[in-house]
Amino acid sequence: MMNITFTKMHGCGNDYIYINCLENMIENPEGLSRLVSDRHFGIGGDGVVLICPSEIADAKMRMFNADGSEGKMCGNAIRCVAKYLYDHQIVPKNTMSIDTLSGVKIIQVYAENGKMTSATVDMGKPNLEPSALPILMDRTESIVNMPFTIENKDYHITTVSMGNPHCVIITDNIESINLPIVGPTFELNPIFPESVNTEFIEIVSRTSINMRVWERGSGETLACGTGACASVVAAVLNGHCDFDTDIEVNLLGGKLIIRYSDHGVFMTGPATTVFKGEIEWDGYLIR
Amino acid sequence: MMNITFTKMHGCGNDYIYINCLENMIENPEGLSRLVSDRHFGIGGDGVVLICPSEIADAKMRMFNADGSEGKMCGNAIRCVAKYLYDHQIVPKNTMSIDTLSGVKIIQVYAENGKMTSATVDMGKPNLEPSALPILMDRTESIVNMPFTIENKDYHITTVSMGNPHCVIITDNIESINLPIVGPTFELNPIFPESVNTEFIEIVSRTSINMRVWERGSGETLACGTGACASVVAAVLNGHCDFDTDIEVNLLGGKLIIRYSDHGVFMTGPATTVFKGEIEWDGYLIR
Repeated sequence: MMNITFTKMHGCGNDYIYINCLENMIENPEGLSRLVSDRHFGIGGDGVVLICPSEIADAKMRMFNADGSEGKMCGNAIRCVAKYLYDHQIVPKNTMSIDTLSGVKIIQVYAENGKMTSATVDMGKPNLEPSALPILMDRTESIVNMPFTIENKDYHITTVSMGNPHCVIITDNIESINLPIVGPTFELNPIFPESVNTEFIEIVSRTSINMRVWERGSGETLACGTGACASVVAAVLNGHCDFDTDIEVNLLGGKLIIRYSDHGVFMTGPATTVFKGEIEWDGYLIR
Repeated sequence: MMNITFTKMHGCGNDYIYINCLENMIENPEGLSRLVSDRHFGIGGDGVVLICPSEIADAKMRMFNADGSEGKMCGNAIRCVAKYLYDHQIVPKNTMSIDTLSGVKIIQVYAENGKMTSATVDMGKPNLEPSALPILMDRTESIVNMPFTIENKDYHITTVSMGNPHCVIITDNIESINLPIVGPTFELNPIFPESVNTEFIEIVSRTSINMRVWERGSGETLACGTGACASVVAAVLNGHCDFDTDIEVNLLGGKLIIRYSDHGVFMTGPATTVFKGEIEWDGYLIR
């Protein structure tokens, strides 16, 4: 039996339970995440994020989803890791590197009174090849505003891989979309052999879009960092927004600023510490 | 700005944020509950429960729902209050009294190694008069297995007031009920001027029933203590279960034991401490 101290943090409502493992690794993080992520019987969260030592970066982030599976990278979570490292003066630097299963990410920290308020994350370059998504289609050029029919409904889709697959649909009114019905028609379509995250976006101006997202395996979520990146890439490719310009993306859970440039896609957003806690954990069960 | 320490506890998945106010009362508990109950941006819970001093009982429980409104009484929450008082040796007694907005409740504590494992709560006597519910019907005798048609569907209902109104329907298969569709037809029916909590129950044996509940204002929940009491009263009135006998009620979130006797309805169930935490609160906002 041991006591695990944790910090609950969120980025645009994408909330995880953060555990400092710089000194000691915890046992069975997969099992811990399954138990503590439950929102009624556990701590409640989208999963558990471990802050671990790294030999090639300032720290390493390991993330476990609520089902215990290990995730590669999450743009909202990595900002929270940066805030944890900065606010606790573990990494007192305005430019820090954090290793993930998707490689080392560079983060710019913006702070006030010694506390990080927001951060910019280099999310890497989008891959526009259909085979990168993948999508089962005999085609090599990128898919931009392509007519696409699912269950007798006609859409125009733009597909973007940000390491994970996104299908973006530009529409007049995102509030009118019945996402619990429409989302699964994309998520479960066999043309996407690894499934797909689906974003419905609405162009507000050349520097602002509204977005709702249906994440594979999770349903509608308050925020999706890679989805916001893919949506801005799609908006630029379709001529609605400008390249190398800050575009605000309004999500259910908050606002992200995305810039699509020659150097990659940069995401700027907030990170919030909600509370600190302590739970007993024997590696298997919660008492 | 102050730090508030809290304990997250649940009874059958009915989870609240418990705050010890025996020494100091907190400011604006309504606003605190609205903020911290949010499951993505806050601590997450069905609401906040304050453990306060009492001049007429061992302690007083005040409960605030997630919308900030003050609740009267919750059978799952009062067991958690008893566990808090017992485990912290604040009230080291096996029979304790806790004051609520529904009056003083007497609780029997069952403990192992100094920690409460379960408790029996005297939930009071059911009121079977139609006017107690209330239900708009020109009738004075109790409503037991009465034919009742809502939106062209025929049901047989038994109504029970446990301080709050319950409408119980005995059915062959509770899993087949489309509760998100059916629940609101009862909840919003003008025949129940104060709305109603609706329980669908399935008789397993003379000492066991399964139950699903649609709570007014909340939708389907994992557990409802007064609903479990009303369901056993209804099962007894309909001749399926016996008076003055322990009946187990299987809920989505766990199991409660209910006994309907001449002295009232007694509910026995577990209470679980999940974790302890600390949050900053300035009376208005969370940082």
